[in-house]
Formats: sequence, C-alpha cells, structure tokens
Amino acid sequence: MVHAYIESNKQRFLDELFELLRLPSVSADSRHKADVRKTAERVMHRIKEAGADHVELVETKGHPIVFGQKVIDPAKPTVLVYGHYDVQPPDPLELWKSPAFEPTVRDGKIYARGACDDKGQFYMHIKAFEILMKHNLLNCNVKFMIEGEEEVGSDNLPTFVKQYREKLKADTILISDTALISLDQPSITVGLRGLSYVEVEVTSANRDLHSGVYGGAVANPINVLARMIASLHDENGRVTIPGFYDNVMELSAAEREALNKAPFDLNEYKEELGIAEVTGEKGYTTLERTGIRPTLDCNGIWGGYTGEGAKTVLPSKASAKISMRLVPNQTPDEITEMFRKHFISIAPKTVTVKVTPHHGGFAAVTPTTSKAYKAAEKAFEEVWGKTPIPTRDGGSIPIVALFKNELGLDTVLMGFGLDSDALHSPNESYGIKNFLIGIETIVAFYKHFGR
Amino acid sequence: MVHAYIESNKQRFLDELFELLRLPSVSADSRHKADVRKTAERVMHRIKEAGADHVELVETKGHPIVFGQKVIDPAKPTVLVYGHYDVQPPDPLELWKSPAFEPTVRDGKIYARGACDDKGQFYMHIKAFEILMKHNLLNCNVKFMIEGEEEVGSDNLPTFVKQYREKLKADTILISDTALISLDQPSITVGLRGLSYVEVEVTSANRDLHSGVYGGAVANPINVLARMIASLHDENGRVTIPGFYDNVMELSAAEREALNKAPFDLNEYKEELGIAEVTGEKGYTTLERTGIRPTLDCNGIWGGYTGEGAKTVLPSKASAKISMRLVPNQTPDEITEMFRKHFISIAPKTVTVKVTPHHGGFAAVTPTTSKAYKAAEKAFEEVWGKTPIPTRDGGSIPIVALFKNELGLDTVLMGFGLDSDALHSPNESYGIKNFLIGIETIVAFYKHFGR
Repeated sequence: MVHAYIESNKQRFLDELFELLRLPSVSADSRHKADVRKTAERVMHRIKEAGADHVELVETKGHPIVFGQKVIDPAKPTVLVYGHYDVQPPDPLELWKSPAFEPTVRDGKIYARGACDDKGQFYMHIKAFEILMKHNLLNCNVKFMIEGEEEVGSDNLPTFVKQYREKLKADTILISDTALISLDQPSITVGLRGLSYVEVEVTSANRDLHSGVYGGAVANPINVLARMIASLHDENGRVTIPGFYDNVMELSAAEREALNKAPFDLNEYKEELGIAEVTGEKGYTTLERTGIRPTLDCNGIWGGYTGEGAKTVLPSKASAKISMRLVPNQTPDEITEMFRKHFISIAPKTVTVKVTPHHGGFAAVTPTTSKAYKAAEKAFEEVWGKTPIPTRDGGSIPIVALFKNELGLDTVLMGFGLDSDALHSPNESYGIKNFLIGIETIVAFYKHFGR
Repeated sequence: MVHAYIESNKQRFLDELFELLRLPSVSADSRHKADVRKTAERVMHRIKEAGADHVELVETKGHPIVFGQKVIDPAKPTVLVYGHYDVQPPDPLELWKSPAFEPTVRDGKIYARGACDDKGQFYMHIKAFEILMKHNLLNCNVKFMIEGEEEVGSDNLPTFVKQYREKLKADTILISDTALISLDQPSITVGLRGLSYVEVEVTSANRDLHSGVYGGAVANPINVLARMIASLHDENGRVTIPGFYDNVMELSAAEREALNKAPFDLNEYKEELGIAEVTGEKGYTTLERTGIRPTLDCNGIWGGYTGEGAKTVLPSKASAKISMRLVPNQTPDEITEMFRKHFISIAPKTVTVKVTPHHGGFAAVTPTTSKAYKAAEKAFEEVWGKTPIPTRDGGSIPIVALFKNELGLDTVLMGFGLDSDALHSPNESYGIKNFLIGIETIVAFYKHFGR
C-alpha cells in the first residue's frame, strides 16, 4: 500500500522537491536573503498541506525556522524531525554540467544544489508524513523543525531551542542528512565530527607593492601565510597546535576493528576521486582518518593578483579559511581559541595576523541501543532486507550535540545520501531511488517506533 | 626659456596626459583590447603633433607598437626613446581613493593607473621633444618606440626589434620608467633585475569534496600548495631551487659598499610601509636584497571558497602566481626550467602539478661611463643642482637586455618616479613636480648629448 502510493505519486513528489530546489536558498550569501525566506514559506506550506495541525515560521536574528506538528495523543511517543532548507553556495559555477538551481535528471539522479543536502532528504520526511496521514497510519506524534542556517553554523538555533523547549518536547530526534554506505548496504551514522571554522588574514605592508622594487626585502604575506599553514601539520600528518589532541576520545582496539569492518575498497575510492594516493594522519586507516580523528583543512585561500595573465605585485594581505573537524570530547570554542593563540604565536614579526572565528559545533556519538535506533534498524531490515551497519561520518551536524545538551534527546541519523553525491561541490546529486526508498523506510520507522 | 615654456603650457601638458590616463589600456586583460589600441592611436597622434616626420602604428601579434622619428641629420647622434603605454590591471578596485582611470590631483600628485608607470613618464619625452622642436633646439636625431605589452612581458617586441633593426639604429636608448631616490636627491638607475614569472596549479581529487566526509584522508591542494611554497625558501631566506644561485653575479666588497652609501633610512622605510620589520636573505642589507640579489615572491594565490561566510569544501585545485627577480648572469629561461623541475619534484604523490611559464626577462647593468650617461648626469646637475647617484633598482625592464643583445645599444634609465608612487598598486601616483622637472631635465639631456 505504502509502496504503491509512492509509485503512483512519484512524479508529484519530485515536482514538489524540484520547486524547492529551484529556490537558491544560499544562507551564506546575503544577496539570497529573500530566496531563503521564500524557501521557508514553501516548506511551511508543504508541511501544512501534508496534514500538520500547527505550522509556523519562527523569526530569528537570521533566517527563519519552520516549525510544525501533529500531536495525535500527548501520551504517545513523539518524533522530532530536524532538517535544513538552506544550501551551500553553488560556486565554482563553471563546473556545473547543468545549472545549480535548475534540477536536472541524468541517469536516475537529480542534479541540483541541495538535492541531497538537505532538501531532498528532509522532504522525504514531509512525504512520509503525508502517507501516514493519508492512510491513517500515524501511531505517534510528529514535530518538524526545518532551519535555514545549517550551512552557516546554526547560530540562531540554540536560542530557538531554548525558547521552544516545551513545544520541542519529544522522545527522539530523527535526521536525514547523512550518507549510506551504498544502495546495496544500508547504514546508520552513529558518529559525527564537530567543527571549528576560522578565517585568517595576514597583513604585511600597508598597501600593495611593486614586487620588483620591494620583493626580497618586505615580507610577502602569501609566502608567510603559506609557511604558517604548512607548519600546522607535522611530517606524520598530525596537527601541530599545542593541546589539539589533548581531549581526543581514543577508540579501543575492538572499536577500531569494528569500524574497519565496514565495506570499503581503497582502490575504488582512489579511482572514483581520481587520486593516486590517499594521505592523512600516520597510523590510521582512511575510515579512521575521516571518522574518528580530528583534522585541519584549508577551505579557501586568496591574496594578490588572481586574474588573467601576470601582475608583479607584492600584495598587502593574504587570507585563508581554515576548518578543523573535531571528535568527541574536543570543545569547539577551546579548539578555536587554541588555534587563534597558536596561529598568532607562529606569525613572524614582519606581519600582523587577524583570526576571525566563523562557527563551530560539537562532535556527536549516538547510541545504537535506543528504541529509536532499533526502530530505524527494523525499518531498514523490512524495506531493504538487510541490517544497517552503524558507521561514523566525517561531517558535522552540530545540532546533534545541541539537542542532547538542551533537550536531553538522542538522535537517529537515518540518511539516504551517498558519498558520491558531491555535497558542497558542483554537480551535487541525489538518486531518485534513494529519495523514494527513503520515504518508504521512514514510513516503516514510524510503524516500529510507534508500537 | 624652456622653464618658462613648461610653466605656461603646464595645464595643456597635464590635460594631454590625463586624456591618456583615462584610457584603460590594461594589456593583461583581453576585454581592454580596444582601449589599448585607442591609447596607441592617441600616442601616435601626440608624437606626430609634436613634430615627428614619420610616425606609424606597427601591428604585432599582440598590441601595436608606436614608432616615430625626427632625423635632422643622419650624421648626428641618435637617441631612441622607449616607453610603454600599457598599464597594470587596476585591481583591487575597492582600495582606490579615486577611480583608477579618472586622474585626480591631490597634494600635487596625479592619482591614476599608469600615472607614473609609464604614461606620465614616457609622455615627458614627447613634451620635451615638442619643446626642442618649437625652439629649434634639437641638435640630434630622435626616435620613439612606445609599446603596449611591457606589463605582460613584451612578447612581440623581439620580433619587432629584429624587423625594424635598420629604423631603430641609434647611439643610445633613453627610458624613463624608474624612480629617483627623492626629489632632493636625483639618481640614475644603472642596474635592473630580470624576471621569471610562472603560474602553478595543484590538483588533488577530480572534484570539490565535502571537507567533513573526505577531510583528513584526501590531500587538500591548498595545504599541499602552502607546503610547497613554504619549502621554496630556507631559514636564511634563500631560495631552495637547486642551481638557483649558480650564475648569480656576486659584487665585490667595494661595489657593495658603494651601493650601501645611497641615502636610505631603514626606520623611515619601515614607517612609510607600516611594517615592524624588514625581511629577506640573511647577510644582505635592504638595498642589496632589492638591488643585487635574486628573489622569489608569490604574486597571487587562490583556491577553494573565497566568498562571504564559511563553506566546508575540500577543493579540487589550488593555484598561485610566482615570480622570481633575477640578477645579472641568471638566464630567465633556465631559471624557469629549474623552477618547473623543482616544483614538480617536491609535489607529493597525492596531487598532480602543472607549471605554466608566463614571461621572463634578463637583468641588466648599464654603464656609467657612456656619453649618454654623462649627458644625463650633466642634465641633472644643471636642472637640479646636484649630481645624480647611480642606483640599482629591483624592478625589471627586460627590453634593456634585449636592446643590448639585438641592437648593441646601452640604455640610460632616466626615471623621475618615486618609490612611494605605488606602482602596480591601488592609488598609483606621479608628482606634477616630477612630471614638469622631468621634461626640463630631458630637454637638458639633449643639449648635452647632442653637443
């Protein structure tokens, strides 16, 4: 019945998702403020239409949060669905094969910014809810909280969570914003890394200089920044910031062994990415490096002349965006402060350095023993015919820690994306099959959870 | 008489220069192709108007070269004036106090891209020529060669020089494209550094990746590029490319002592630039570091997300523009090839590297014993009441070596700019006083040279 309904409504489901994907809800870019709001309004409309009692657009200091609920019986268990309707910036635009905000289907995949992260994924929940309502299958309460600032650090979510503490009361959080191992092997993410994101600026002279007249005598901020960035890792790929590893949760040999049992083919991985070699912290496997170890990456760098041809300038400034992925027990604010102190301490006297924190978030580990996890496991078994493997993802969803701390709730990360979906990259995609089977699996989750 | 003529025609001279400065003749940017040509046409018109017999626009594979001449007597000595009507790109535009292509006078200085480099400087020669013609003072032959590709490496000049070898016959080259020590202390540049300019690109994965999912396991091209750039200098500020210093002409202790006698106040220098410390190759003074030592500077770097806010991307590529200033006996092509080999050799296996040479040029040393140098010296003595000090500039004018090799001619670098003129930077300027006294000094040069 559920499967048949999904099949016969497939085109409408996709059309509705495409409408959302056409809205460039880039939260990082203030020029898209109106688009972000318009997206929130469409999400609100869809939740209402699916059958929620009470739906509202909650204003924040930034972009609004969509809240909606269907309480069938206060005595019954409650699921709080979290998702985000904002997306990453689409650039570099020239690398998109079809426009970032014109969803295009190729080989069974929807190509668009936000297709997987997270419009395609949170929208599965609204459609699953529609099905439960239509077929009178809803056996627990459902609440939705779809925010618009996940990609810029969810700055206004903590305040909202505090204000709405009563309304947000639930028994579990359910989020689809992670990836499966593959369509052949379902998995549930049980660990997420945290994040500390900073921007640095190195200034030498008070103006751009002619590199011939001053080169060799006045510090070049690009060369200096390069040296500073280079020094942030040692020869074993470890981050050199003093204290960086102090609180890192080390896994037991057994835990590491279990983690490395997840299906993973290094050659396929390298081939798919077009790289000759992987890299990273010595003594750890690729799955460990991205799952349980903290890291430091430059996400952007710029300075001097970057246009066509040649300009012999000794620039005044050079900048970089640097993010650190954190693991359980590392505190984002502490790590950011460690970074700041260290980065300033390694600057030569020839330059001045500015460090601006962007945002951060705690790592999270979710239990595999909860009723909600068990319901998710059963849902996969029922729909996929396979038991999902618990995995640790390298990405960050800081709200998982926030929910635990503020609401005392554990989260189930029931994601249906794939690593090959190119999140945050040009040509982001989401499989139509993933979208449809995701809806079906979520419906099954409620069946088991509400029992 | 000359001085009075300059004073009474001052406004017209400036108006004519401003007309040239309003044309955005950015040779590096193909969008400005028509502006570059229009500038060449105005220069041609002005040389004709000043009294040259034969003026033409010579087509090249790139931007045209303006050639003009006045031969009063083939038996008399000939001065070949070189200049360039193209300019550096104006960016970063937001740092200009007045628009780059709308010349604006503040505190006696003309602010505009090209004000000093080189429109304001080569135009002095056209006005000096006008004066010589108007007052029947020309006592030698004059030829003009004003090109439009100096800022992009003068790629088509060698072919032109070969083709026009007969027409370019002269006894000396005269160029105003360098700086004075100050308006209180005239100087003549007798040494220029050469140049090797390359662009590098480091590629890791075949697409931008999510830094959470892949960070720590897949090479980050920005971090790798930073490490590679950092390794190009050792702890003593020396360039680490094998063979880089092999052919460097070392100066004798006496030559170094003479060089360091030029007026130079390190504290003023630091204060003017807003820096706490200078830097550079150990064992050399600032004047030596910019005058007689080869250097390596990043002129630009870019990669990943550089927009507003935060994006957690592990970029596919990172790039940089790198230039090396060379000293006598270093061969640009050899240095470029050394760089290429070395840079590829230091790349880790996790990435691929592309090195693209932009342009290069030989360093040059000009004699202080020639008739032309002596005439320049006398001209300064007459107009400024002071003997000019011979100096070595850090910049590059590759044509000086080209002229020596192809035409057998030495150059006199009679520049009237100041280091504070912000060449290649926002708010480039040229003092009106420098412009006017430059014209007067050039007129005096002819008087002494033609004798």
